[in-house]
Amino acid sequence: MDPKDSRFSTQISHLALDIGGTLIKVVYFSPNGDNCEDGSIVVGNGCSVVKGRLCFAKFETRKIDDCIEFIRFNILQHSGVQHPNGTARDKFSVKATGGGAFKFAELFKDKLGIVFDKEDEMHSLVCGVNFLLKTVPREAFTYLDGQKEFVQIDHNDLYPYLLVNIGSGVSMIKVDGDGKYERISGTSLGGGTFLGLGKLLTKCKSFDELLELSHQGNNRVIDMLVGDIYGGTDYSKIGLSSTAIASSFGKAISDGKELEEYQPEDVARSLLRMISNNIGQIAYLNALRFGLKRIFFGGFFIRGLEYTMDTISVAVHFWSRGEAKAMFLRHEGFLGALGAFTSYKDQSHSNDLKPHHHTMQRAVLKCSGDDNFRHTPVTGNLNDGEAIECSISLV
Amino acid sequence: MDPKDSRFSTQISHLALDIGGTLIKVVYFSPNGDNCEDGSIVVGNGCSVVKGRLCFAKFETRKIDDCIEFIRFNILQHSGVQHPNGTARDKFSVKATGGGAFKFAELFKDKLGIVFDKEDEMHSLVCGVNFLLKTVPREAFTYLDGQKEFVQIDHNDLYPYLLVNIGSGVSMIKVDGDGKYERISGTSLGGGTFLGLGKLLTKCKSFDELLELSHQGNNRVIDMLVGDIYGGTDYSKIGLSSTAIASSFGKAISDGKELEEYQPEDVARSLLRMISNNIGQIAYLNALRFGLKRIFFGGFFIRGLEYTMDTISVAVHFWSRGEAKAMFLRHEGFLGALGAFTSYKDQSHSNDLKPHHHTMQRAVLKCSGDDNFRHTPVTGNLNDGEAIECSISLV
Repeated sequence: MDPKDSRFSTQISHLALDIGGTLIKVVYFSPNGDNCEDGSIVVGNGCSVVKGRLCFAKFETRKIDDCIEFIRFNILQHSGVQHPNGTARDKFSVKATGGGAFKFAELFKDKLGIVFDKEDEMHSLVCGVNFLLKTVPREAFTYLDGQKEFVQIDHNDLYPYLLVNIGSGVSMIKVDGDGKYERISGTSLGGGTFLGLGKLLTKCKSFDELLELSHQGNNRVIDMLVGDIYGGTDYSKIGLSSTAIASSFGKAISDGKELEEYQPEDVARSLLRMISNNIGQIAYLNALRFGLKRIFFGGFFIRGLEYTMDTISVAVHFWSRGEAKAMFLRHEGFLGALGAFTSYKDQSHSNDLKPHHHTMQRAVLKCSGDDNFRHTPVTGNLNDGEAIECSISLV
Repeated sequence: MDPKDSRFSTQISHLALDIGGTLIKVVYFSPNGDNCEDGSIVVGNGCSVVKGRLCFAKFETRKIDDCIEFIRFNILQHSGVQHPNGTARDKFSVKATGGGAFKFAELFKDKLGIVFDKEDEMHSLVCGVNFLLKTVPREAFTYLDGQKEFVQIDHNDLYPYLLVNIGSGVSMIKVDGDGKYERISGTSLGGGTFLGLGKLLTKCKSFDELLELSHQGNNRVIDMLVGDIYGGTDYSKIGLSSTAIASSFGKAISDGKELEEYQPEDVARSLLRMISNNIGQIAYLNALRFGLKRIFFGGFFIRGLEYTMDTISVAVHFWSRGEAKAMFLRHEGFLGALGAFTSYKDQSHSNDLKPHHHTMQRAVLKCSGDDNFRHTPVTGNLNDGEAIECSISLV
């Protein structure tokens, strides 16, 4: 198969990467059936429509070789692009975003023969969210007091909104329309802080392990509460209950305990609470500046984890006195990669990404279970449960 | 000496405490000479004016017995209030604020015969700052790029301002006038977080030790910078330089190092930077909400430490694009205690606290050195260098 064949190069180009400081997110189109011929239908206008799914995978940035091998064996090889010796025969352009699109460009060229067509990070994030909100039903939801509620977004009333992307660090972007956005704020206390501090404090090896730990912990063991300062009473005059956290990790000062004497799960819980609450607060303050009522939280930090979403929601609700709403996205971790993926369409006009609304809705329902949707643990690299059924038109 | 003697009880009442989650701050009036008779002058209106100094001391809350013994031997005994057996003969009322005014009220009554006359924490903070800004020259200053500049505050143009008090946790108070204030925000990432996490991560035993460590550290060892993600380049499109911190502690994820393999000073530095920057950012966002141009930072977290002040100032300057100014206070650690102290006047009208402007100015100059004033390390419990010369009128 000639790699310069138009059908073929389209296949290859439908892979996009978002290489962050901690994680590499991969989105790729997988046609139904074993090869790219299956499922393709020639439609009236001469286009060939290929049905398939958008698939998602993630890798730790420090294990970038795993990602390279994954792409080599699962994407390039399946498409028949590989030389028998395992290297690519020619240079293929692939959409890439995130800082790693710059940092690792040479590595991908050398190892896979892939040339990065770099997309701006913020632009990709915004495109990814707009794509999801406009085309994927039951994508956005609120989470408060254990209740998950899907939010129906009116496409004509989508803007403006605040996008808070929690990666290693946190970016806050005011989105006013398609391609109209501004990064207005951010914080360095993000997912990288959670995992970085968490590793140092608990000896956890991975984000998943740390999150799992935090599930079982009790932050009151190590956080200093208002009641700890006020002798069990609250400070009602200014609306602080006795159980409000006065000082994150504040009890570690007076306990006289060594790190080893604390339960790692309690430490993980305090850390998660501290970072989630801080992000929620800064997000709210920024939403307030611009009168934005809707705040969408994305990025791989959240992972559909109830406690994290609850903390963020409570922070937004508390500080805004119920005025602003925290919303979450089912494909939260792949916003940038999805945005980079959709940009193929923007530039070339040679193919068009159309999600199958009906089948996709079924797929979404299938992976989300029901309205009592709970966190699906991310056990492997592949996020199969999040796949989106769609079709691509090839002109 | 009869403890009910009016002169005597006035002496005793001129002691105020601010008992926080981490530190106890004590302000007391020390007459010039060895006893309360010295230095007192009967003035025209029949008042007796006692010259002396406002003195300051601090104790760790977990070592509250040290504070009790200090008050017993240095304040009560000097005033002759003590029974020979070391207990107080009667109940004396003393102004107290902070959560510990509630939590430890019984302890002080039992051990010293002192009854706390409780003052609201926020009210005391605001009174303390207003007192300092109105009566103590060269109290407020800015600190940026290694330059300290005293700020002359026009009393008629003092309000409104934002007071950010960094104790174990952080309170943010909008001050509109004498006794006119509102706690508008706060964060649980405060001094207690710095010391609590710092102890767990570095085995440091005290705040001073941790601050000293942080002086020598390099946060870039453990923080993930924009350049680390972008391969050494910046992300200039959104104004992030390659040396900006993308993710606090983010490098700990990929380094594969154990806690013990990091230098404690680098960890301390990252922690200080993270917390100072976060407070500066949240303070700015709150100042912005209410159009407040002046932000005064107080509380025992800062301690005149250049790096902390610089980080906070840079955060405020960066986020406000130079619109808002971070200001610091020489008596930053004793705001609540000073406010409680000044409230004697408010309630009883029986005595009046008048700082000696001229002598005080000399005293302030003496302890502040000159405009190149540098941090005076707090080596003991007594903050003698910060004493304010003043007089008290007894009616």
